[in-house]
Amino acid sequence: MANENNVTETIQAMGQAARRAARALSRVDTNAKNSALLAIADQLVEHTGTLIEANKKDLEAGRANGLDEAMIDRLAFDAAGIQKMAEGVRQIAALPDPVGEITDTVFRPSGIQVGRMRVPLGVIGIIYESRPNVTIDAAALCLKSGNATILRGGSEAIHSNQALAACIRDGLEAAGLPTETVQIVGTTDREAVTAMLHSPEAIDVIIPRGGKGLVALVSREARMPVIKHLDGVCHVYIDPDADLDKAKAIAVNAKTHRYGVCNAMETLLVDQAVAEAVLPDLAKRFDELDVELRGCERARSIVPSMTVATEADWGEEYLGPILAVAVVDGLDAAIEHIETFGSHHTDSIVTENYTRARRFLREVDSASVMVNASTRFADGMEYGLGAEIGISTDKIHARGPVGLEGLTSQKFIVLGNGETRH
Amino acid sequence: MANENNVTETIQAMGQAARRAARALSRVDTNAKNSALLAIADQLVEHTGTLIEANKKDLEAGRANGLDEAMIDRLAFDAAGIQKMAEGVRQIAALPDPVGEITDTVFRPSGIQVGRMRVPLGVIGIIYESRPNVTIDAAALCLKSGNATILRGGSEAIHSNQALAACIRDGLEAAGLPTETVQIVGTTDREAVTAMLHSPEAIDVIIPRGGKGLVALVSREARMPVIKHLDGVCHVYIDPDADLDKAKAIAVNAKTHRYGVCNAMETLLVDQAVAEAVLPDLAKRFDELDVELRGCERARSIVPSMTVATEADWGEEYLGPILAVAVVDGLDAAIEHIETFGSHHTDSIVTENYTRARRFLREVDSASVMVNASTRFADGMEYGLGAEIGISTDKIHARGPVGLEGLTSQKFIVLGNGETRH
Repeated sequence: MANENNVTETIQAMGQAARRAARALSRVDTNAKNSALLAIADQLVEHTGTLIEANKKDLEAGRANGLDEAMIDRLAFDAAGIQKMAEGVRQIAALPDPVGEITDTVFRPSGIQVGRMRVPLGVIGIIYESRPNVTIDAAALCLKSGNATILRGGSEAIHSNQALAACIRDGLEAAGLPTETVQIVGTTDREAVTAMLHSPEAIDVIIPRGGKGLVALVSREARMPVIKHLDGVCHVYIDPDADLDKAKAIAVNAKTHRYGVCNAMETLLVDQAVAEAVLPDLAKRFDELDVELRGCERARSIVPSMTVATEADWGEEYLGPILAVAVVDGLDAAIEHIETFGSHHTDSIVTENYTRARRFLREVDSASVMVNASTRFADGMEYGLGAEIGISTDKIHARGPVGLEGLTSQKFIVLGNGETRH
Repeated sequence: MANENNVTETIQAMGQAARRAARALSRVDTNAKNSALLAIADQLVEHTGTLIEANKKDLEAGRANGLDEAMIDRLAFDAAGIQKMAEGVRQIAALPDPVGEITDTVFRPSGIQVGRMRVPLGVIGIIYESRPNVTIDAAALCLKSGNATILRGGSEAIHSNQALAACIRDGLEAAGLPTETVQIVGTTDREAVTAMLHSPEAIDVIIPRGGKGLVALVSREARMPVIKHLDGVCHVYIDPDADLDKAKAIAVNAKTHRYGVCNAMETLLVDQAVAEAVLPDLAKRFDELDVELRGCERARSIVPSMTVATEADWGEEYLGPILAVAVVDGLDAAIEHIETFGSHHTDSIVTENYTRARRFLREVDSASVMVNASTRFADGMEYGLGAEIGISTDKIHARGPVGLEGLTSQKFIVLGNGETRH
């Protein structure tokens, strides 16, 4: 109990410092923010040795605590990884500053002129697991968009994160920005997460980055808005009027370009009109690539080597070389399947038919809806947003890849000449 | 417990029906939505007698249960009130449809073309108190923006709300839209509110409309995003370079145009350089209008008739003929006061100085920031948004007046020609 109070007090104090930093940061010019980013990138490269040593401590502790190899893998970085982090920060420095943009200005009959100005969100809390590069990516994106951050990484990465935080702090200092712009929660106490989620006066928005358990906890407990990413159960639907060469290339790319990513295809929907023409070829190609196909009864009647898909397969995010395959009757059935089993992340139709392409674009309620393109394009860099802090599956504020703009909002501004309301 | 389960089941069933309706609604054309709105307006006028009788039942029950006069006042409507509701619905029908707008389309080096399409949020839950006109306003705005709604009004307005709901249902039916587009929670059980707040799978966004207790409850308990309005502690700051005629007119208008509204000024900040020039005149004018002034020590040294402001006055939303007055030293002190005691709603500077106007616009972190205009302009109609569902004091999604656009979001669309990712 005493401990819980201490943690809460620590988070409150960090929140107050963050709020002061956010106010200062919302006023500095673009050049100061960019200077800080470039200084942070230099610090990272300069302290490569120290960073790798800190990372080693985490890796040793992780192995001693029996972390599995996948987690060890996510935790580890080397000199090339540090170079990549620094390069990412430099790219963020090169992006246009979203803050201060004035749009939608109109004169109203009352005489006032109304517009909108893009502004930072304020203080962003980020709760994440294992990957230490999130510390750098998140801090850099929030800094460029004028926000202060409170970062709470996994306890297994605490040494790496503190070493990275030192680089950030020195970079901020070098550019004359408040060092409280980016704060790392120093304790590995679980209570620190709860304290963050229950402090809406200190933190304006929470972004969880990690497994489903973490995201569910944050959604349930947070008393402030959450920008989150849940599952990526993405579909490709091959329409009767699909160009079958495009269809096959897109299906193979969407599944096999990378497996462990949220924008990989997990279910292939094939219209019954083209199923016989496209499935045998595709099955052969997937077999060569060691992808297991799990088919519905009709798919298996065409390609009997597929294993049997159960109901659970339709909602599964495999994140691996497995693909569910269903034969469907027309666009309505395809959309019905996507709305029933999908996760509103990214879905693509392959067709040359204008009307059905237009209907798919409008009627599929996903963050990214595509025609004749691989689901793998659902990505901040591919969309031209620059780096992304994540891909949101929420319905409000930001859907899909969240870049700098998603870390800002718009306030109204009114320019008047003494107008009063009648 | 049994009851709680029943209520939860009812809300779940309503949620599923709402989701089906939302999907249907996201696909109907603008004309069908407008037809439904016009039919609802006609129904309201046609059933004026029935509506007034239902309202009488609520008023009688309210008086029997000892509701205070202010609440009875909010609850009551007459034929003119019904005409006004119908007129509001017709105005919403006349607004442009925000859904389907495609913006920001760009070709990317990969060959894909990326853009954004404006889409409804889905199912919107609205929890509100007393005023039955919210039933009509909210239903009409959500319908026009392509959203299904689940409305939960106060138990004291249950007969009025059900009579209004019948008009909405008949209007929807007349236009061939699903009647589940707008559903009213029939039970006055408190558990229904909890069941709504705990059903993120059924409801995408919650909007509370009511007192601070309700808004606090909803913010704490909701497991989905909330668009909410907290306090309106609005400021006018009179700068040393203010045109004093504009300053006086704006101060009087911002305080006295209407008292019980969130965009009324609650604290007047006067720069010490002009305090002697402006305060005596203003005090005289406010005295004529029976507004009580509560001043800081320096304000009282100029106008001794002011009562003494305590620390609590600076954060107070009076919603009545009371005004706190503070003399401050310069723009930084004014902004510091606003950021410390304000509610990030609406704040205005009166000045002819270009640089300080620009700084105020940028540095004050409120949903509406104004130069030389009355805070009373912070309003959806005045801003040209058409009707508003409320004024958000949140930092994400929508700040300030929330109209049709605030009830939508944007998904990404990708138009390709068979592109795959390298």
